[in-house]
Amino acid sequence: MAKMANETGLTKCAANYVPLTPLSHLKRARDVYPNRDALVYGARRHTYEEYYIRCSQLASALEKQGIRPGEVVSTICPNIPAIIEANFGVPASGAVLNTINTRLDADTIAYILAHSEAKIVLVDTQFIPVTLEAISTMTTDAPTIIEVADATAGFPPTGKHVEYEDFIAGGDPHHAWHMPEDEWDAISLNYTSGTTGRPKGVVCHHRGAYLMTMGTALSWQIGLYPKYLTIVPLFHCNGWNHTWMMPSLGGQITCCRDITAAAIFDAITAEGITHFGGAPIVLNTLINATADEKKCFNHEISVLTAGAPPSPATIKGAEALGFKVMQVYGLTETYGHVTECIEPNEWMALPDPERYTKMARVGVQYPMMENIEVVDQDTLKSVPRDGKTIGEIVIRGNSVMKGYYKNPSATAEAFDGGAFHSGDIAVCHPDGYIQITDRMKDIIISGGENISSVEIENTLMSHPAVSLCAVVARPDEKWGETPCAFIELKDGVVKPSDAEIIAHTRKYLSGFKCPKTVVFQELPKTSTGKIQKFELRDVAKVL
Amino acid sequence: MAKMANETGLTKCAANYVPLTPLSHLKRARDVYPNRDALVYGARRHTYEEYYIRCSQLASALEKQGIRPGEVVSTICPNIPAIIEANFGVPASGAVLNTINTRLDADTIAYILAHSEAKIVLVDTQFIPVTLEAISTMTTDAPTIIEVADATAGFPPTGKHVEYEDFIAGGDPHHAWHMPEDEWDAISLNYTSGTTGRPKGVVCHHRGAYLMTMGTALSWQIGLYPKYLTIVPLFHCNGWNHTWMMPSLGGQITCCRDITAAAIFDAITAEGITHFGGAPIVLNTLINATADEKKCFNHEISVLTAGAPPSPATIKGAEALGFKVMQVYGLTETYGHVTECIEPNEWMALPDPERYTKMARVGVQYPMMENIEVVDQDTLKSVPRDGKTIGEIVIRGNSVMKGYYKNPSATAEAFDGGAFHSGDIAVCHPDGYIQITDRMKDIIISGGENISSVEIENTLMSHPAVSLCAVVARPDEKWGETPCAFIELKDGVVKPSDAEIIAHTRKYLSGFKCPKTVVFQELPKTSTGKIQKFELRDVAKVL
Repeated sequence: MAKMANETGLTKCAANYVPLTPLSHLKRARDVYPNRDALVYGARRHTYEEYYIRCSQLASALEKQGIRPGEVVSTICPNIPAIIEANFGVPASGAVLNTINTRLDADTIAYILAHSEAKIVLVDTQFIPVTLEAISTMTTDAPTIIEVADATAGFPPTGKHVEYEDFIAGGDPHHAWHMPEDEWDAISLNYTSGTTGRPKGVVCHHRGAYLMTMGTALSWQIGLYPKYLTIVPLFHCNGWNHTWMMPSLGGQITCCRDITAAAIFDAITAEGITHFGGAPIVLNTLINATADEKKCFNHEISVLTAGAPPSPATIKGAEALGFKVMQVYGLTETYGHVTECIEPNEWMALPDPERYTKMARVGVQYPMMENIEVVDQDTLKSVPRDGKTIGEIVIRGNSVMKGYYKNPSATAEAFDGGAFHSGDIAVCHPDGYIQITDRMKDIIISGGENISSVEIENTLMSHPAVSLCAVVARPDEKWGETPCAFIELKDGVVKPSDAEIIAHTRKYLSGFKCPKTVVFQELPKTSTGKIQKFELRDVAKVL
Repeated sequence: MAKMANETGLTKCAANYVPLTPLSHLKRARDVYPNRDALVYGARRHTYEEYYIRCSQLASALEKQGIRPGEVVSTICPNIPAIIEANFGVPASGAVLNTINTRLDADTIAYILAHSEAKIVLVDTQFIPVTLEAISTMTTDAPTIIEVADATAGFPPTGKHVEYEDFIAGGDPHHAWHMPEDEWDAISLNYTSGTTGRPKGVVCHHRGAYLMTMGTALSWQIGLYPKYLTIVPLFHCNGWNHTWMMPSLGGQITCCRDITAAAIFDAITAEGITHFGGAPIVLNTLINATADEKKCFNHEISVLTAGAPPSPATIKGAEALGFKVMQVYGLTETYGHVTECIEPNEWMALPDPERYTKMARVGVQYPMMENIEVVDQDTLKSVPRDGKTIGEIVIRGNSVMKGYYKNPSATAEAFDGGAFHSGDIAVCHPDGYIQITDRMKDIIISGGENISSVEIENTLMSHPAVSLCAVVARPDEKWGETPCAFIELKDGVVKPSDAEIIAHTRKYLSGFKCPKTVVFQELPKTSTGKIQKFELRDVAKVL
């Protein structure tokens, strides 16, 4: 302890100690920016004053419905205003927000609703059928459905459930918010997409969410009054916590229900979007958009990309469109991004290939994090900064989850040794920048050699006909495993032969790293644009 | 409480909970920006790697000298590298930093050294005599002097004390920092300048200092790699906490020992300064600099100003020089600035006088603060947002002091009702922007009417011959008090008559608000450029 000689009267009190929570940002924004636009969806616009009132009404309506602090309220919604409002309205009732991935099957949704003990679920009309199917299989108490209709998007109310607007209309616009008494209280519960086994529930706290907003604003150099477009689904790490950050900057959130090139370009020009986040696949969608879909704009747009390292071709194409791209890295367990590939001025002078290679690293820790490093998996000691020695990324800091809900053994395992184990394999370069070489389970071990699937993928992406690709291990009697490449081609190109693809990789890679098998097919993806390699592994096994 | 149904395993641990402290910023900067310049003073330059090592050596040397966590280390230094390094090195030893105002007399210094029980004091050679004088009067244990010589500035070592460079040379460059176990632990102890009675010791904690850095970086839109010039003395609210913030942005601190127009313009052009803070008087010094002193630069410099509302003439003059000025407001008890006069885009279109009037408000609360408002002093309820009703500014949030050291009754009084009482009198405008009308003790009550001394001062500043002014109450048999104006004239102007000055104010003010007495003299100022009205009140009493 480091107490002074006399600390009489130096205790915490209401004047000098307030539990950290992103709810404070919206309370302040209502005061500071009451008349600025906070939330836009097509023709709908809400100022901060209106937004605050709608969130208050939601909190009040939830409490009237019987929600008690610490209980769970779920959503099954795309990026529409209701899920944005839920980011404040649900915690403002003291409840915990559980945003469920809309791409999930009924069985998994039923599992999540039961495991979380959700009391209420806000469901977009489009997802009412799958929700009803899920609920029909539940053996525990099912949540009450509040239906969020979106007639403009082609989803008028079914008439069978209380509709969201009617629900919040019953709430008190002057409702006093439930501010957390303890900043360690849960604010959200997000289920990981779990490629094997049941998803795990990641519990995040108010303190971590608040610090994410501060660290992101500091590092993204976002400035006041940003215009943010919701491309990252709100059910993915709560949209990287950007909804919670925006009020601190007087920013505007524009909702984008469908992630299509046309919708994104429309929003950019209509609202003057300045910032968004999205997986590299979203950037590829924009780069490969048709002339009809593309629209001109003459301002720079800052883009955070994550989920996979952007290929040089993706960065180059995105920059040509006017996007300033920075890769960030994180996991649901870390609230989203916790490393960032800050581009030092010196990189601007590098030749393209070298610069793009550096930009494809996940970089360095965000300012709100305490320590992120690559460690040897046996000794837990830092690996040398040589850009070669492989280790696991471990993460320590205030934006790390409380733990997995109702799963103390998985929590203990994840926090083994006093840091969160990411499961991502990486090297650390001499400049301290971390580069992911693979998910632990994505490494291909061929003839005893570790092969990075990412390295092969980057090489494949430089082939002019390749639009998207993924490399996985294919079982092999002689070598144990060999690399198997799955490729999506660009529209209208002449299909190259397998041999041509392999020859292309041989120009850049050692022979043992080159794919032995090539498959042309559409790649299976998660709702957030991540390629589902486990499905491809199943395909590779039976080739 | 808002606990979830089952919180087993969701407790704090080393992975997910780290006490907030600005020390983390420098640890990260050493990793992320090791080769960037961190600290510059004339020909001296230190990279982040070197800066980190020097701070480690200081921490190590302090511990070797016997400093224990919670003990106090003082400084009596101008803005030179040693005081910057003390901002990290002292807390990195677990000790509490006490930066003593270099303008203080020996008696007050002795009081502070005794009250704080300082064990070590870092003293710039220039201030060795006053320190020795202070220590000679102490009846309690005196601190050990470490002398900080500055030969380049004309202060070579006396040879009678251990010199700072020798002291830290004895420290271990690989010393492990003492990171706080509790973010509520004290990081600093700053004595208020207390115009009456003994100064009070304001104890600040690691949590508040950390959140100051995050909130400031967010709101100042400072971006990466700022070049900051130390004009605000480090002994004033720890230089507004900017030293602690800079590493989070990879920023460079340039030390400025003497606050003269020539030194400031030299630094701006030599180092490409982008940001500084300073009282309006510093801006006036720059505006009124001679042609020889002024230097041209062609980049915009962001300036935070505080301590007094900038007059329209000051804002206009500063903007003409290339400074973007924002007024902020705070007190030692709030770590420095906690409100900011964010300029909405709409103001840019206003006529000058109207815009400058708005910019002279202290504005709205910073994002790290919870609630700052103007309340009725009797009921503690918010005053109406009418721009007219006077009340006291009260402040609640995480950047409010732990309390006054060894003074629980003053602490309890300051926090009465659950918010810190600033003692500043203000109105709140319909847009939520707060405007200070006076320090509680600066209000002039004439014939039962409250008169704002600030309002009269703003009017006087618009007179072309006036360089600086202050208005205080002069006792008056008939009216109780009347306004008495003290004026510093610009160099080389023809001295106006008293009547001409009074006539000038009458153009803008009601008769009862106009000064009845005018005195032309140099104004007494504190080391931070605040005009010492209590001295002028003494003069006015005997006129």
